[in-house]
Amino acid sequence: MDTGSLVAPHPLLYRSLVERALLEDLGTGDITTEATVGAGSRGRACIVAKEPGVMAGGFVGREVFHLVDPDLEVELKAEEGAGIRPGDLVLEVQGNVASILMAERTVLNFLQHLCGVATLSRAFAGQVAGSWCRVADTRKTTPGMRVLAQYAVSAGGRGNHRMDLSSGVLIKDNHIAACGSVGEAVRRARARVPHGLKIQVEVSSLEGLRAAVEAGADAVLLDNMDTSLLEQAVALARGLSPGILLEASGGITLENVGAVAATGVDIISSGALTHSAKAVDLSLRLM
Amino acid sequence: MDTGSLVAPHPLLYRSLVERALLEDLGTGDITTEATVGAGSRGRACIVAKEPGVMAGGFVGREVFHLVDPDLEVELKAEEGAGIRPGDLVLEVQGNVASILMAERTVLNFLQHLCGVATLSRAFAGQVAGSWCRVADTRKTTPGMRVLAQYAVSAGGRGNHRMDLSSGVLIKDNHIAACGSVGEAVRRARARVPHGLKIQVEVSSLEGLRAAVEAGADAVLLDNMDTSLLEQAVALARGLSPGILLEASGGITLENVGAVAATGVDIISSGALTHSAKAVDLSLRLM
Amino acid sequence: MDTGSLVAPHPLLYRSLVERALLEDLGTGDITTEATVGAGSRGRACIVAKEPGVMAGGFVGREVFHLVDPDLEVELKAEEGAGIRPGDLVLEVQGNVASILMAERTVLNFLQHLCGVATLSRAFAGQVAGSWCRVADTRKTTPGMRVLAQYAVSAGGRGNHRMDLSSGVLIKDNHIAACGSVGEAVRRARARVPHGLKIQVEVSSLEGLRAAVEAGADAVLLDNMDTSLLEQAVALARGLSPGILLEASGGITLENVGAVAATGVDIISSGALTHSAKAVDLSLRLM
Amino acid sequence: MDTGSLVAPHPLLYRSLVERALLEDLGTGDITTEATVGAGSRGRACIVAKEPGVMAGGFVGREVFHLVDPDLEVELKAEEGAGIRPGDLVLEVQGNVASILMAERTVLNFLQHLCGVATLSRAFAGQVAGSWCRVADTRKTTPGMRVLAQYAVSAGGRGNHRMDLSSGVLIKDNHIAACGSVGEAVRRARARVPHGLKIQVEVSSLEGLRAAVEAGADAVLLDNMDTSLLEQAVALARGLSPGILLEASGGITLENVGAVAATGVDIISSGALTHSAKAVDLSLRLM
Amino acid sequence: MDTGSLVAPHPLLYRSLVERALLEDLGTGDITTEATVGAGSRGRACIVAKEPGVMAGGFVGREVFHLVDPDLEVELKAEEGAGIRPGDLVLEVQGNVASILMAERTVLNFLQHLCGVATLSRAFAGQVAGSWCRVADTRKTTPGMRVLAQYAVSAGGRGNHRMDLSSGVLIKDNHIAACGSVGEAVRRARARVPHGLKIQVEVSSLEGLRAAVEAGADAVLLDNMDTSLLEQAVALARGLSPGILLEASGGITLENVGAVAATGVDIISSGALTHSAKAVDLSLRLM
Amino acid sequence: MDTGSLVAPHPLLYRSLVERALLEDLGTGDITTEATVGAGSRGRACIVAKEPGVMAGGFVGREVFHLVDPDLEVELKAEEGAGIRPGDLVLEVQGNVASILMAERTVLNFLQHLCGVATLSRAFAGQVAGSWCRVADTRKTTPGMRVLAQYAVSAGGRGNHRMDLSSGVLIKDNHIAACGSVGEAVRRARARVPHGLKIQVEVSSLEGLRAAVEAGADAVLLDNMDTSLLEQAVALARGLSPGILLEASGGITLENVGAVAATGVDIISSGALTHSAKAVDLSLRLM
Repeated sequence: MDTGSLVAPHPLLYRSLVERALLEDLGTGDITTEATVGAGSRGRACIVAKEPGVMAGGFVGREVFHLVDPDLEVELKAEEGAGIRPGDLVLEVQGNVASILMAERTVLNFLQHLCGVATLSRAFAGQVAGSWCRVADTRKTTPGMRVLAQYAVSAGGRGNHRMDLSSGVLIKDNHIAACGSVGEAVRRARARVPHGLKIQVEVSSLEGLRAAVEAGADAVLLDNMDTSLLEQAVALARGLSPGILLEASGGITLENVGAVAATGVDIISSGALTHSAKAVDLSLRLM
Repeated sequence: MDTGSLVAPHPLLYRSLVERALLEDLGTGDITTEATVGAGSRGRACIVAKEPGVMAGGFVGREVFHLVDPDLEVELKAEEGAGIRPGDLVLEVQGNVASILMAERTVLNFLQHLCGVATLSRAFAGQVAGSWCRVADTRKTTPGMRVLAQYAVSAGGRGNHRMDLSSGVLIKDNHIAACGSVGEAVRRARARVPHGLKIQVEVSSLEGLRAAVEAGADAVLLDNMDTSLLEQAVALARGLSPGILLEASGGITLENVGAVAATGVDIISSGALTHSAKAVDLSLRLM
Repeated sequence: MDTGSLVAPHPLLYRSLVERALLEDLGTGDITTEATVGAGSRGRACIVAKEPGVMAGGFVGREVFHLVDPDLEVELKAEEGAGIRPGDLVLEVQGNVASILMAERTVLNFLQHLCGVATLSRAFAGQVAGSWCRVADTRKTTPGMRVLAQYAVSAGGRGNHRMDLSSGVLIKDNHIAACGSVGEAVRRARARVPHGLKIQVEVSSLEGLRAAVEAGADAVLLDNMDTSLLEQAVALARGLSPGILLEASGGITLENVGAVAATGVDIISSGALTHSAKAVDLSLRLM
Repeated sequence: MDTGSLVAPHPLLYRSLVERALLEDLGTGDITTEATVGAGSRGRACIVAKEPGVMAGGFVGREVFHLVDPDLEVELKAEEGAGIRPGDLVLEVQGNVASILMAERTVLNFLQHLCGVATLSRAFAGQVAGSWCRVADTRKTTPGMRVLAQYAVSAGGRGNHRMDLSSGVLIKDNHIAACGSVGEAVRRARARVPHGLKIQVEVSSLEGLRAAVEAGADAVLLDNMDTSLLEQAVALARGLSPGILLEASGGITLENVGAVAATGVDIISSGALTHSAKAVDLSLRLM
Repeated sequence: MDTGSLVAPHPLLYRSLVERALLEDLGTGDITTEATVGAGSRGRACIVAKEPGVMAGGFVGREVFHLVDPDLEVELKAEEGAGIRPGDLVLEVQGNVASILMAERTVLNFLQHLCGVATLSRAFAGQVAGSWCRVADTRKTTPGMRVLAQYAVSAGGRGNHRMDLSSGVLIKDNHIAACGSVGEAVRRARARVPHGLKIQVEVSSLEGLRAAVEAGADAVLLDNMDTSLLEQAVALARGLSPGILLEASGGITLENVGAVAATGVDIISSGALTHSAKAVDLSLRLM
Repeated sequence: MDTGSLVAPHPLLYRSLVERALLEDLGTGDITTEATVGAGSRGRACIVAKEPGVMAGGFVGREVFHLVDPDLEVELKAEEGAGIRPGDLVLEVQGNVASILMAERTVLNFLQHLCGVATLSRAFAGQVAGSWCRVADTRKTTPGMRVLAQYAVSAGGRGNHRMDLSSGVLIKDNHIAACGSVGEAVRRARARVPHGLKIQVEVSSLEGLRAAVEAGADAVLLDNMDTSLLEQAVALARGLSPGILLEASGGITLENVGAVAATGVDIISSGALTHSAKAVDLSLRLM
């Protein structure tokens, strides 16, 4: 899987979260280490995988270590997006032992979560490999982790980031109800939102789909449709507007994602990628 | 299960996370809602459970709604720590529709995570019901969510909060190595840390356990021991020091937690409670 | 001009700027007022226009007053987007006189800038009235004021907000050079960016335009072309791809914007709207 | 013009504004550059003037670049306060191309504004060259930019910074009304404010001026007086109190500032310097 | 002593310190109160003086209580600047008991410090009562407390606030050395600093004093002179420049401050007021 | 006295206070130094003790200097916890003179306070030298300074840090009243608080003491007892529960602390250490 061009988010986008995480773990200081480990003691530690997964977020680990102690030397040993197996070395850090121990838990908490998201995303991506379709995340992320979680999805599945509320238009039932009709909703959005954004409409029936396409939507989100309904929806939409972008969402699982992809939709999005990924077990060992 | 005296964390402890979460979802504004929903439109919305679980974090939802719009009227409809079933009403909100829609995703992202942690904690607690033992969380929380995640564990399992690095002493192998012996490590900790804190030592063998108890540890963490070894450990420790506090950790699952409790330890702690809980599915519906 | 549905940015998006602005004006306190005005003195003040313009940002003024003193009663007397004439009452505030004086300069600094941007935007919009074309702002805003400045453009000209770097794709020469060809640049962007975003390419010649359209760009920015070249560009682009979105930018002035609009482009964008608008003169008078 | 001893504000005073500006431009990341420019690509870029002006704020540009990427090498090519002509090289930056592009707009937004203020200040200063009088700015700055804007005025015109509310005393009509008389207002201020501050009174008539001087004001602000009235005011004030400091303000333009200076006032202050300066056109070119 | 017109600093100037103080005392929550006091328990508490002193900072106490719980009703029972005796009621608070207990220590920490500073300032002021001279504080404040500490000095002694580095000019030996002569230093300062500020020079000998006055200083700080030297200095300075402002500093104690005042200086400043005041003993009692 | 293993708090825990302190001293800039000292001037300065004391907080001084100017070379010349005499060199700094002067006051304000706390703590510690007993601080710290003040106590007296509200349990009268009995309060705390924390109860009579010990408290705080009552309390408590930890507090002075220690308590705590320590006089001299 081609993940060579993964670009890590800029540290400005997550540094304050790293600081918050460190402070919430540090409290008023690591009293055990302060009492038992000499201030000048130096050493080397490794972070090692204890179960299989996909690597994501090594650069956040480095940021945590450097926020605790800029003199720690951190080497990332697993490529972002690469598969990791039990026993694989993921990161190596050298320097002041007390600094390493103080950062340990926070580094692991970030990595176990981001690797978990990447691992689940990879599994979903694997199920649609060979199809035209891409798997995408949603805005259902753990609060505070949006930009990192979306990155981890990319690292796992080359899925496509999805929006915050300002960088995409998604017209749902409530918006349509407020406007009186989907046509009016699309018209208003077209008139108001930045011209670089496509207008997407969420629908849950073929009637809704027809209305959305006829209203001129650039993209449609097909919500909670089973595969047979999805097939009809794809046929209907492509017939009306060949270039329209079709996204399926709702009730997507590892088991059914392949079948959903086979219906011909362009994008499948799933909140589970970010809100229900199991942590990957990693541990830090002092050498 | 008696959860009547659950105390929510003070808003000072999570308000900045709520703000960060809102801002990361808002971007530069909810352009769809701005384009389609009139600024003066008023309505009522319900958050409803779509699967069974345990309620936790309703007060965070209220905080999110109020940060978006102080004039929204929020009513919490499910007691914290109570079981919820599909279709149950969890929260009701009334007021400006655009405000409700703007807050929707962030509210749900908090609730689905916290209810997920509470639900898993309740399942663990159920497995040890009837024993003396309590299930506790660890410091393996999603970065930024520590205080809320630990609260959610309490809401689910009446488990005991565990420390940040400053509010508890846990001497591990690396600390012992730095001191030369467990005795010296305990002595140094006793001399340095606040007198209100117990000294706990992590051990993974009976030899280590004996050394820790003889060194005067107030509590011991029995790491990664199977139930048969745990039984021996409990017998050995209670023989040497009847009042010592015994905690088991490592490899705890829903399947084996009952058997671990039966060994006679006082506390069982598991990172899975906070790092690998599946989100509980909730949705907001405008009435 | 229909500005009825203007939506003010959410206070979360500008409150910290308001606080920064107040603190930079307050220093360690308004020593003149503290020394001369009694703490309990109450009164009423009006903000009045001293020259013609377009109203924008009254809600920011209210936010400033309330941050200084939540008990001040603020009434916005001019509708957002409405024309104002010398002597017009823009805002009325009642309450503690010392609070009013302490907030005065900061309120005026926001209003004079935002009204200035709205006024200039209205002038541009007036020049293209009757054409299909819309006038839009750019990212050339005074640092810190982005979301408010873009709002003020809307208040003035119903122009369309434009992106930050994450909510729009604009491929420029440097990006094309890095990819080897415009076709490759568009392909990479299509593969990587969220599916809700159009791909726009900046070109400065008819050759570049042809290449961009053939590469499948959804939109093109025609940079620094005179009206005669713009006319050819519009003809060429519409011939190749009828639905493509065409934006003109560079060297747009109040004098030539009408002629540019007449070339048939969809959007005209100008940095001057936000970076070079003259302040509208307003003053606060205690009654 | 001697600007050799210009001192840039300390970065502590503007770093948070730089961060805010970067974040508001970055959104969740520069998706175009991420998609099209290789992470390892290196290059050199120049910021070049496209119209004449006065240089100010190069150090802020450097701060922006370094906040995006500490490894960028930035060289300031135009002296602060120096005149710049179209085509002049203002700043050169070398290093990671993606970093340069990510910082580009924010750097330019700061520089175009600060050079604009410096350029207008230089024009005003030029009009009073040869007179005793100095041109000063006011507190009418774009919110958030106070310390930088005042610096830019210095860079342009060697004018004198003016106060925030805590670092200067300016008694206006409202203060006098609250005290009953100008004499009482001056007395109270003298009794309360730090002894290092002069007491200045704003007056708009000769009667007011006489009262202020007799009340013992150290300085007077002559508000909105035409040159003939200013001449009388200067004569009156100097007669009563030879050492008193006289400042003219209100309705100052490039056209009349020379005539105002000729009346013999010590200081002329103008809000236009900071609130209505046109941006200087600058552009960044990758080499 | 007339303290009726004391003006409390604006909450914007100390709210973040209050928040920091609360968070550093709260840690992750008041576990004792959470475990033992019912969430709904309501009551009334009083803060009572346990030793004599001068009241200062009641409004900060109210701010702390309201930050913990906006529903607490707080009544300030002692006027700012008033003397308090053992047993005097200083503040009364009613509402949720857990909230009161959670805020208790932070409220008391602020009050005991500010009352301490006010009490010491009152003692100094008492020593110079009847003389022309005023006692002032310095910049030697506990980090973070500047604006509150200077307020407390005012509350105690009607002393005069003194500057931060930007709101006053004080030329010391190092500055003079850098300029070559005091004359040159004064000239440079006069040319550069805002025109509303007086130029003060620190001197430690009569020669230095003569040079400073001849250089045109508006004020002089007489550093570490004994009373006999101070008398000569006052005579010399007044002879050369009748209106010059004279300040004595260095080695001022409660014992000698009266004698220093008798030398005829205008101002006596002492760092001890803010850096070495003993806390006033206060306690909170639940009724 | 063995202070070799003193561990400075992590900069994350005090950096924002350092920044706040610098900004409150800087205002909008050090205008005297800017006007008189050349931007390129370099030099060396020493901080020297002017009275005897105990060194504490040199690392904070370095942090201040480096926040002002990362290129300053700072050398700490006095070991933390070491005694210092008048004339002793405490810290040396080399580099840009303007930077040194700008940081001077803030550095000294931190050092004079922290050395003051350490000096007073050393004096208390000296009074109990030879006894089993340790002197500890309390939560009565100057707001914002908690972690640094507690460190300074350690530097002075090897006293033991004490808690924030989350890292220790202290049951007082109010908590007991809320629970009905001390037994119930201890039971509830035992059931709710993290298992690594001891349960301490505050008592002021022998009856209260007996009840607390019988309720199973791990530690007791003997509040405001005179030495004869303390002796009885120690005898009673040790008789009932030999291992119980006994702390005396309330009314502790340098004069009586030795006698209190002689009663056999384990810990003596005193708020005076942090809230009423006199600053140690230090000064910075440019060489």
